[in-house]
Order: sequence, then C-alpha cells, then structure tokens
Amino acid sequence: MMKKVYLDYAATSPVDPAVFQAMKPYFLKFFGNASEPHSWGVEAKKAVEKARSQVAELLNAKAEEIIFTSCATEAINLAHKGLIEALKLSGFKARPHIITTLIEHKAVLEACHHLKQLKLAKITYLSVDKYGLVDLKDIKKAIRPETVLISIMLVNNEVGTIEPLEKIGLMLKTVNALRKKQKLQKIYFHTDATQAIQYLDCNVDKLGVDLLSLTGHKFYAPKGIGALFIRQNTLLTRQQDGGGQENNLRSGTENVPYIVALGKACQLVKENKRKEGKRIAGLKNRLITQVLKIPQVKLTGHPDKRVPHIASFVVLGVEGEAMLLYLNDQGVAVSSGSACTSGELKPSHVLLAMGIKPEIAHGSLRFSLGKDTSKDDIDYLIKIFPPIVKKLRQMAPKL
Amino acid sequence: MMKKVYLDYAATSPVDPAVFQAMKPYFLKFFGNASEPHSWGVEAKKAVEKARSQVAELLNAKAEEIIFTSCATEAINLAHKGLIEALKLSGFKARPHIITTLIEHKAVLEACHHLKQLKLAKITYLSVDKYGLVDLKDIKKAIRPETVLISIMLVNNEVGTIEPLEKIGLMLKTVNALRKKQKLQKIYFHTDATQAIQYLDCNVDKLGVDLLSLTGHKFYAPKGIGALFIRQNTLLTRQQDGGGQENNLRSGTENVPYIVALGKACQLVKENKRKEGKRIAGLKNRLITQVLKIPQVKLTGHPDKRVPHIASFVVLGVEGEAMLLYLNDQGVAVSSGSACTSGELKPSHVLLAMGIKPEIAHGSLRFSLGKDTSKDDIDYLIKIFPPIVKKLRQMAPKL
Repeated sequence: MMKKVYLDYAATSPVDPAVFQAMKPYFLKFFGNASEPHSWGVEAKKAVEKARSQVAELLNAKAEEIIFTSCATEAINLAHKGLIEALKLSGFKARPHIITTLIEHKAVLEACHHLKQLKLAKITYLSVDKYGLVDLKDIKKAIRPETVLISIMLVNNEVGTIEPLEKIGLMLKTVNALRKKQKLQKIYFHTDATQAIQYLDCNVDKLGVDLLSLTGHKFYAPKGIGALFIRQNTLLTRQQDGGGQENNLRSGTENVPYIVALGKACQLVKENKRKEGKRIAGLKNRLITQVLKIPQVKLTGHPDKRVPHIASFVVLGVEGEAMLLYLNDQGVAVSSGSACTSGELKPSHVLLAMGIKPEIAHGSLRFSLGKDTSKDDIDYLIKIFPPIVKKLRQMAPKL
Repeated sequence: MMKKVYLDYAATSPVDPAVFQAMKPYFLKFFGNASEPHSWGVEAKKAVEKARSQVAELLNAKAEEIIFTSCATEAINLAHKGLIEALKLSGFKARPHIITTLIEHKAVLEACHHLKQLKLAKITYLSVDKYGLVDLKDIKKAIRPETVLISIMLVNNEVGTIEPLEKIGLMLKTVNALRKKQKLQKIYFHTDATQAIQYLDCNVDKLGVDLLSLTGHKFYAPKGIGALFIRQNTLLTRQQDGGGQENNLRSGTENVPYIVALGKACQLVKENKRKEGKRIAGLKNRLITQVLKIPQVKLTGHPDKRVPHIASFVVLGVEGEAMLLYLNDQGVAVSSGSACTSGELKPSHVLLAMGIKPEIAHGSLRFSLGKDTSKDDIDYLIKIFPPIVKKLRQMAPKL
C-alpha cells in the first residue's frame, strides 16, 4: 500500500479522537434543544455554556464575550457587516471606512467588497512588504475621521506570516484615546485568528482586539463550527435573524455536539500548545531546509515571524497545481494556494500583494503540518519531492 | 429509575444511529476539505455531492438546486435577504414588497423585520383563521405591483396546521403569467418546510415553490445543518461572503460529516415516510382523544389538516410553563411554545394570530412525537397528565 502523508492541516484537520468522544453523546443521548427548559434542554444548555468557557479561557476573554457561529467565514461576516449596520442604526452619518490588507482571507475581502458594493462602507486595502508584513505607519496614515474598523489577520493562511497585532493594538489605543477627546467614533479592531489559535498566544487583551474570529476545523474540531469574540460594549447587529439564540447575536438552534467539540479542542490546544508547537516547528524547519536545497526554490512569507506549521514556497518554472497532483499521486496532500480559492487557477492574491510576479506566483506550494505529522512523513516528502520538480521542469516548455 | 418520555420531537430529535454511522467516517478518516483537489478533498467532495442528490431526490429537485446551510434559520435569511438584495442589484427600483403570515417561525418574521427596519422592503403580515389557515383570497388581495416574494410555511411548528401551499402555488402561476405580460416583476414563492419534510410530500413542483428551507435536526440528522432549495433562475445574492463554496451562494468550508448526515436522513425519510407517518398519526390521535377528556382543554390548530406528529392544546386556567415543568419532574419532555421563543414568557404569537385570547394562550402545550415514541409512552403521558392539570388548577388563584 502506498504511504499516505497529509500535509494540508492549514486547509483542514481530522477530528481529534478525544474531541470526537467528547461530542459523541450529544448526538444520540443528550440530544436536547438548548433553548428548551426541560431536562433534555438543560443538559444541552449546560454543555454549551461549559464549551463557551473553554473557548473564552483560551482567549483570556469572558464567557459572555464568545458567541458560536457555523464557521470563521460566518464570524467574519458578522463582525464586519454587523458593526457597519449597528453604527448606521445608531445614527452614524458618514459612510463608514474600513482598513484592511490585501492579503486577508477571502472571507474578509469579500465581506468588505460586499459592503462596498452596497455603498455601505469605504474600504482601504493596505499593501504588505515582501514577507507579507503590514506596516504600522501605513495603517496610521490610512486612518480617517470616519474610520470605524481595522481588520487584519493574525496569521496569513498561505504563507504563515505573523502580523504585528500587539503593536497595532497599542497604536490604536492611543489613537482611540485621542479620538474620544475629539468626539470621533472609536475604531474597532478585528482579527481573523483562524491560523493562529493552535500555536500562538491569542490573548485578546494582549492583542488589543475587539473582535476575533476562529474556526474549529483547523485544530481538530469538526468543520462547521466557529466562534466570534466580541469585546463588551462593541456595537454589533445580528445578521442571522430568528429565535434570538447566542445572546441575540446569532439565531438558529445551537449545534450542541460541535459546540462541545470546539470547547474540548480549545482545552486541548491550551494543554498542548507549547510542546506541540516546538515539535511541529522542528519538523517544519527540517522540511524548509531540505526543500530549499532544490535549485530555484524560494521560501515565501517571513523567515522567522511565521507560525510553526506552515512552510510555503515558490518553485520556479513549475505550476503549483501540477506539483500538487504529482505529490497526490504519491500519496501526499498539500495545497497550491488557499483551499478556498484553489479550483481557480489564478495566482494567489497574497503572493501578488507581496510583490511576487504572477508567473512565479503560479509555482506556489504550501505544506502544513499537524498532530499526526512525523519525521518519517517529512523524510518521505523530502525524498519524493525533488524528482517531481525535476520531472515537471523537464516537461515544461521553457524555464 | 424514572420513566423518560421525550415528546418534543418538533423542537429537535436525536440523531438516528444509521445517520450517525454514515457521517462518522468523515470526522476521523475522510476528513478532507471538499475544496481541495487532492485525494482527501476529492473523497469529501464526492460525499457532499452524493448527499446533495439525496436531498434533491426527496424534494423532486435537481441536485444543483440544493445548497447546504448551517440551519433552516440561515436558509430562511438567505432566501429573504438574498432575493431582496439581488433585485436591488439588478436594478429593481421600487421598494420591494413581501407577503407573509403572522404565524411564521421567528426566522421568517425577524428576517422580514430586519429588511423593513433597514428600509429595504415593505412587509404585509396576513392573518389566519381560528385553525391557523391562511386564506387564498387574502394573499391575492395583498399582491401589489412591487410584490416580489410570498413566504408561507408549509406546516406551522406550534400547532401543526398544514397550509394550502399547492393552491397558493397554482394561483401564483396564473398571477405570474399575467404579470409577465404586464412586464411586472415575477413574484417568488418561499416556504419554510422545516416541520413538513418528515411526513408530507415536499415535491417542489407540486407545491409550486421557488425557494424551500429545511433543517436536518427535526428528522434525525444533527443540529447545525440545513438546506435551501433554489429553483433555477431564481435571483439570489449570497449573504455569507468568502471562498465561494456552494455554487457561490454560501461561503465557508463544507461541513462534510453533517452534509452526509443530512443526505442519509433524507434517504431514510423517503423510505419510511408513509409507514412511519401512519404509525405516528395513530399515536397522536390516541393522545388527542385522551387529553381532550380533561375538562376545559382545547385542541389548537386544524383537526384534520395537521401533521401526524404534533398535538397541541390550550389548557384553561393553567400556565403552559408550569405544566411543562411538572411533566419534566415526571420524566416527560414537552414544549410550551416554539423552542426558539420559550424562555420568554410571552404568549405565543401563533395562538394570538389564531384569535385565542392572551390569558388562554398562556396555557398552551405542544406534544410532538417521533421515531422512538411508543404506545407505552403515550399511555404514561395520559396517566400522569390529568392529575398535573388538576393539581395546578387547585393551586391557581382563580379559574
């Protein structure tokens, strides 16, 4: 049988057996509707609130500052659209202005685009440097009187670069203090922490954020459950209307098993973060060192300011999609861009924003590691990958 | 040990063991991201598309007319807001008009309210008769040139009344044919079929609907998965922006296990509908006959035009919430209103719309039956319920 090596953890992860065991009883036995006052409902409600505390604890937030959503995409849409709408309803007169970056996940970019298309907001998309880092000075310069939201990801999903959130948060504190005196609208700070939760410190006070989105399926909870941290006193109008669940911010019957799963996954992250981060970083560094021995291959993203689990490259003269398929033929799963946009064959908007030329960006490949990744897996990859690159280069019309 | 009798299936159901078995491998083994082109992704994608066909088959729809959402509430919000927004973006000038009823689920009522609040639509809420039935003539009378959507539930969730969808659909066909000649906007027809899927024929062509929402957790799939049928050529703008999944109508990583579960649950419904409906109707009729022997108890909803699984009453001189808690003390789960609004102690908007006085509506109770309900369960209920009513009436300050 062919060896199978999954190196696409940044796209999605398997459910941890402990997480599976934690949620399982809520499918079959404790299946009540958490909004019902009878014992089945009370049991479900208790489980939901325990999970809420587990998520809050990981973020150093209060339980009541966490609401559950069906994914990060929903959380991101709620954060952006919910804030803009709440401001409008509260009498904010100017067209509100959002500052974000060119390298955000499509969920942020498209939510912003949607608001712009409906003339509900103006958007500034900040550029980044060659490592994918946003510049604090650029953010400061982009702020206008009608700016109401800054939305910057904590970790880029394609290249793994860690953005300087703490510094932005501190700067914003000063800016907001001044704006208060000037009677200007407070600027809220959102971060999509989807790729950061597992290995970085996501303390919302340290980061200085008002809104933080995450999704469970990147760290061993199932696909279909996310959360939004909403700092107390943050304006937000719910986008999914109905029965008024989740503190009236997200209607719909609570997905009890997945909520329990997300809570458990957060607890496991808290316990394992440091040790597992170290192990994964070691394997990733080994992978980077070896892959960079292939001629005309470059690391994308920042060499040091990057998460432990993402190693991303551009391979000159080869299509990322072709490498992906050849690796797949040998049992290895990787990504040639963000999962959400693969299928399209456009070069990555992230790499383009980092100043990489389109013809080079086409050769992008992302390896992402996780809990079941072993040294053996990395060695297998290192063995089979150089011949694939060589073969594809020989097949290419020109180099 | 106390006997436990769950009679709240209309609020939510346990996951069917066969459904659980069907989805289980997608948590741990086939855990790929359905948007990725490698073998893990392809496996996931295949499972998603199989489930889409299973849902479509139950509705007599095409697979490409089904999109998966996180619940009926999301599907309903998408149907309403997505249509209104699409019309606006396509150049529809007037403020669009929606016709709905006073007895819809909160998801419909609140989505409409939201559109109204933002001045994006005008809403007509139709009254119903004492059985909860909407009148075809009232609908016809409410239609205006700028009417774009009629949204009427197939089955009311609190009293089980079946609305005359087929007749409305036929009427609309005629109306729309005429409007085409007059170059007026087509009126789309949405139904929330959440409480109907399990026992009624939900053939979208027979019903004549363009949009149909449903959720899995009412028929033995987990909480957190729903679907929206969108007839071809129906205008709709996605509300959850991001990676463009679900035919660009609902972004977010596909919840593969739950999608598989929903597909399986639909297949089981298709196989068991007729036989199980008959069995449940028999038990429900037994329950109704016996409960009506208690003095001053009235059936709510239509005596015949009702789903097999819902038996709902008002009990004079007693609070629904009190009966619920006393029944719970004896191991029985029921609902005193819609699950989504219980917790509030307002009388049901459905009963009020049916012309029941608030002081009587406070005494409402819903029993809802499901696959594990036995004759024993009903007999137990029939035994313990009359003394509870008697006791509560004795405790009440006046009758």
